[in-house]
Amino acid sequence: MSLVSPSVNDKNRIIPPELNVPPRLLLGPGPSNANPRVLQALAMSPVGHLDPYFLQLMNEVQTLLRYAWQTDNPMTIPMSGTGSAAMEATLANIVEPGDVVLVGVMGYFGYRLVDMAGRYGADVRKLVKPWGRVFSLEELRQGIETHRPKVLAIVHAETSTGACQPLEGLGELCREFDCLLLVDTVTSLGGVPLFLDSWGVDLSYSCSQKGLGCPPGLGPFTMSPRAVEKLKNRSTKVANWYLDVSLLSQYWGQDRVYHHTAPINMNYALREALRILAQEGLEASWNRHLTNAKLLWEGLNDLGLKCHVHEDYRLPTLTTVRIPEGVDGKAISRQLLTEYNIEIGNGLGELAGQVWRVGLMGYNSRPENVLLLLSALKRVLNR
Amino acid sequence: MSLVSPSVNDKNRIIPPELNVPPRLLLGPGPSNANPRVLQALAMSPVGHLDPYFLQLMNEVQTLLRYAWQTDNPMTIPMSGTGSAAMEATLANIVEPGDVVLVGVMGYFGYRLVDMAGRYGADVRKLVKPWGRVFSLEELRQGIETHRPKVLAIVHAETSTGACQPLEGLGELCREFDCLLLVDTVTSLGGVPLFLDSWGVDLSYSCSQKGLGCPPGLGPFTMSPRAVEKLKNRSTKVANWYLDVSLLSQYWGQDRVYHHTAPINMNYALREALRILAQEGLEASWNRHLTNAKLLWEGLNDLGLKCHVHEDYRLPTLTTVRIPEGVDGKAISRQLLTEYNIEIGNGLGELAGQVWRVGLMGYNSRPENVLLLLSALKRVLNR
Repeated sequence: MSLVSPSVNDKNRIIPPELNVPPRLLLGPGPSNANPRVLQALAMSPVGHLDPYFLQLMNEVQTLLRYAWQTDNPMTIPMSGTGSAAMEATLANIVEPGDVVLVGVMGYFGYRLVDMAGRYGADVRKLVKPWGRVFSLEELRQGIETHRPKVLAIVHAETSTGACQPLEGLGELCREFDCLLLVDTVTSLGGVPLFLDSWGVDLSYSCSQKGLGCPPGLGPFTMSPRAVEKLKNRSTKVANWYLDVSLLSQYWGQDRVYHHTAPINMNYALREALRILAQEGLEASWNRHLTNAKLLWEGLNDLGLKCHVHEDYRLPTLTTVRIPEGVDGKAISRQLLTEYNIEIGNGLGELAGQVWRVGLMGYNSRPENVLLLLSALKRVLNR
Repeated sequence: MSLVSPSVNDKNRIIPPELNVPPRLLLGPGPSNANPRVLQALAMSPVGHLDPYFLQLMNEVQTLLRYAWQTDNPMTIPMSGTGSAAMEATLANIVEPGDVVLVGVMGYFGYRLVDMAGRYGADVRKLVKPWGRVFSLEELRQGIETHRPKVLAIVHAETSTGACQPLEGLGELCREFDCLLLVDTVTSLGGVPLFLDSWGVDLSYSCSQKGLGCPPGLGPFTMSPRAVEKLKNRSTKVANWYLDVSLLSQYWGQDRVYHHTAPINMNYALREALRILAQEGLEASWNRHLTNAKLLWEGLNDLGLKCHVHEDYRLPTLTTVRIPEGVDGKAISRQLLTEYNIEIGNGLGELAGQVWRVGLMGYNSRPENVLLLLSALKRVLNR
């Protein structure tokens, strides 16, 4: 091969300075800080995606994800993208054009489910709740009776509102109507009680960067045998190659057939994050998240700040805090970042300008982080 | 929230040992080893995906990708998945149902383009070459005249065969027939001369883990203004939410609208990998890859081993080596891995059992790696 051809243009040849990451405390809706052990695992040298060492690691990741979700689903894997990719994977694999998909919308991520399902040809129906509220089982029953969907999709932990949708009874309801239950557990996995199998959840997805305390980049995904059955009976190919579980299962299953090159280092990191969770134990982690959230809620109350969501269904992982009358919410969050290196989130969608979003997730759910945030908030709000 | 509910099942609560990654030298088709500076960047603490520090870093990554590809395309970003996700992104955004897509197939990844394009409703036509050969400009002209495609898709560097498809003249040809040119540069970016703008390439994708010397997990993606125009004129939504450039451009452009949580740490790593490439310089990197490949080819010849691809269009980044008569190819590659921690690849598809695949890419393209591999090969082959 010759190296002649055009000459190289150096116009875009910038040499930026060395990476110098500011020491942020990430108390927004995610990402949250990663456990240092996880970052150490992330930086190990990659091995091949068919290396016996990696194949063994894949098995461990799968088992530990099953533990975290309390499921025995064989098809439990991390999708090679962020939580949004895993979200799309649930719909891409299960929806065939014309299928009725009923989405319980109570915030931003419900609408994302609607958008995604539509792209796969679903006949999408919506039940809508004000942002910050949750559905009763009776409301969902009525929705199912009216729309007779093939899939009911609902968000367990709405990252945009901080509300936690109760799931008990939903699995039985869906079975009664021969419908699959799809649940977003992005902001609950690892931090909020979840019993996928006991609750009859058929499809779920999450992310690596919240309750698991790993950097963003992988999307845990799980699918029950009932859901796999619907996938097997499809009359059309999954309309997404990268997320096609019928192909992915040949790599993650016994055959180890190459599909795409797995993100090796992110899988090192996820394994370590899940290992930390298994060492702590699920109940201990759930209790820790709840205890630290309560500490936050009390402190907010002492500062005269109100939570947007009723305590009965308020998420321990993500708290929406009402911005007081006359306060510029964005200016306050900017000040926390620039003066104290603390990130909190602004409101999203309908709650933009009305709330801040405070996350206490995974490695970051610690009392010292709560005290620091409350102290910084007190200062910047002059309370 | 109550913490009653079912009790936790510890069946899947394994505590695997600490991560203990074997020190592999990755000389297969990828991933290749990452530069230690890149791994260090990868392990920095994450910041938020809307943090001013990260927004600045995104700009740097975009500029450096433009340098590496020699393009000024504003729409140049890393997709938040592996190279296969970026591959799918090119087709998902550009194909509307019924569009004729002509694929020049000369190996495994050409067939993957065929599969993916079909999932987006394309009317896919194929030109097929034996594995290890490339198309002449005249053959491609005839194909375009016959099929009149909206998109011509072709692989620049076939990772399954080690052949490098010449691209000179193809851009003009595609413009003559008002067709977009889509080129796979997975195994060429950073290691083989590439001049996307001079060559009139409209869509391209690559990966982080080969010529760039970064772990797998990001998929560089670029789209010319001509291709963006076709995207803007679509009558249907892009049939893939995660890879939809019309949404992604709002995050990567001026507006900084949240789409999905970017894989922060992988972007740290990619920035460092691209910074290293800019410090070395493209011509120097291309020359290094060619020089070390020639050293390999000479050494293979001295061992009596033959390359599968003619030297005129042989890739410097990936060499397919014919397995000699009577030798068990898989046993040899297994022995290299277990005895010397050296990974080389086995043949894929039509070349399974016929060749080994040896990669010298990015950080791994160094003469000491060539000498070690040749020496180990000599031993295991008893030559």
